[in-house]
Amino acid sequence: MNIEKAAVVGLGVIGGSLAKALNAAGVEVMGIDMDDKTLLKARKDGVISPDSFNINCDDEKQLELLKKADVVFLALPVMEIVPVAKKISPFFKKGAIVTDTGSTKRFLLNSLSFELTKGVKFIGGHPMAGSEKSGYEHSRKDLFQNAPYILTPAPGSSEESIDVLKKIVSKIGAIPYVITAEEHDRIIAALSHLPQVVATSLAATVGELEEGGEWLKLAGRGFKDTTRIAASSFKMWRDVFITNGDEIIKVIRLFEKKLRELAEAIESKDEGRIRKIFCEAKKCIERGGICGRGHRRENED
Amino acid sequence: MNIEKAAVVGLGVIGGSLAKALNAAGVEVMGIDMDDKTLLKARKDGVISPDSFNINCDDEKQLELLKKADVVFLALPVMEIVPVAKKISPFFKKGAIVTDTGSTKRFLLNSLSFELTKGVKFIGGHPMAGSEKSGYEHSRKDLFQNAPYILTPAPGSSEESIDVLKKIVSKIGAIPYVITAEEHDRIIAALSHLPQVVATSLAATVGELEEGGEWLKLAGRGFKDTTRIAASSFKMWRDVFITNGDEIIKVIRLFEKKLRELAEAIESKDEGRIRKIFCEAKKCIERGGICGRGHRRENED
Repeated sequence: MNIEKAAVVGLGVIGGSLAKALNAAGVEVMGIDMDDKTLLKARKDGVISPDSFNINCDDEKQLELLKKADVVFLALPVMEIVPVAKKISPFFKKGAIVTDTGSTKRFLLNSLSFELTKGVKFIGGHPMAGSEKSGYEHSRKDLFQNAPYILTPAPGSSEESIDVLKKIVSKIGAIPYVITAEEHDRIIAALSHLPQVVATSLAATVGELEEGGEWLKLAGRGFKDTTRIAASSFKMWRDVFITNGDEIIKVIRLFEKKLRELAEAIESKDEGRIRKIFCEAKKCIERGGICGRGHRRENED
Repeated sequence: MNIEKAAVVGLGVIGGSLAKALNAAGVEVMGIDMDDKTLLKARKDGVISPDSFNINCDDEKQLELLKKADVVFLALPVMEIVPVAKKISPFFKKGAIVTDTGSTKRFLLNSLSFELTKGVKFIGGHPMAGSEKSGYEHSRKDLFQNAPYILTPAPGSSEESIDVLKKIVSKIGAIPYVITAEEHDRIIAALSHLPQVVATSLAATVGELEEGGEWLKLAGRGFKDTTRIAASSFKMWRDVFITNGDEIIKVIRLFEKKLRELAEAIESKDEGRIRKIFCEAKKCIERGGICGRGHRRENED
């Protein structure tokens, strides 16, 4: 199966970056958005083709253009995907691959199977790249370079369609990984949703403490890095929390337990227990390749 | 008072960066460390002067060289500063300014006043810049560029000595702020110590969850940024936790409360409460100038 044309629905920071990356990789991209200014900007940038259109127009002729797309990326907040898919799926090309970029996967797999026309192959997708900033203006063609890109096939996904999508993902510089939607939601609750909950709670706590004190100017890079993602889109995260709440609550409980352990160790000045938790943390980020290998392992002194 | 020569005791990532920044700003730097290889490397780099020496040598003639220094930076973990100051303070020049780079300030102010020779002016210091990496090899002359640099005068510090230190801090590109040691320990518990506790607990939690699962390769930038500082030096943080435990425990309690609020909102799918906490968090980091002003305020839609 040859991919000549892709449609990207939603030209925000993820969809816009996808459009730019696909375009740079030689795939023609039809852009579909609800904002005329964004469409115009992406057209001017040479990122999307002239048959791009505004999804809010009720002109069936325009929706018919979707039949040209071999692959459709639904790059919208998780809960906005279902109504949009319902509206546009009758116009998908037979045999087209449909994927999304949402941060939770069970919900869509359960919801979308009813919405997609027969003959369309749905495979969930989640690029592990993003930005705390929103909108097309912050999209970048290199956003997915070397980033993991998770694919979660639906029960009926053919090996061929999975392979085609893996190839597209590799074309934009990302590294494809295939797992189930259940595995995704459990793992990503820990790797992405928990860090968001923690960063948001941390920034909200410091905000409450600082209120009127004007000492945030004293913050160093540690505070900035740990709270950067707290600036992320509320809409996107609301949908994540609502569609993956069960897994997120489980990991919050484990985090609370670990935090309490460390707090007790600090309160009792128990150097051994502080060291134990520091070592656990350091081992984790070393396994994840987060810190340079060349650094001195001082925690393990 | 003219500063012609500085002594930097401890050529780790902070002390090494100080030596490089001071040297680049035209101040001659005497380097004092317990590791001969580090001293040799810094000498070869042209960062420290030939009269630099190993603090573990018991040659009083070498310690006498300290009399040449107009300002002395004690760049060691908080609890290592006191015994070192006790050993070397009899050799300080009369009228020299002595400062440190530790992350807690009340402890040193209380401990050092007894250790310093009469005629020496102690002013606490805390550059809000650092690295999760340790050691001279990770030091950089631009580490302090545009970073806040907190100074906490002792009760007897003269305005003149504070002004001299502010000028040196500005010379290395940092922005000096003068507050009391008590204010420092309260504010930095929130801005720096709490983020460290949270990042360490987060990485330790994910490490425990992942153990053997090998899914850390799926981590995106959000996880990496929120946990980066968990790789920081255990020794340094042990001293911070032990000397500022009371203030740290207070802010952990507030963080736990906020986290519980967000967890309850997620569990009950309460969009309004999730939005409220997201807005608090976003306002905080906007006040702190952490996210670009140009981004869409989607949380406030």
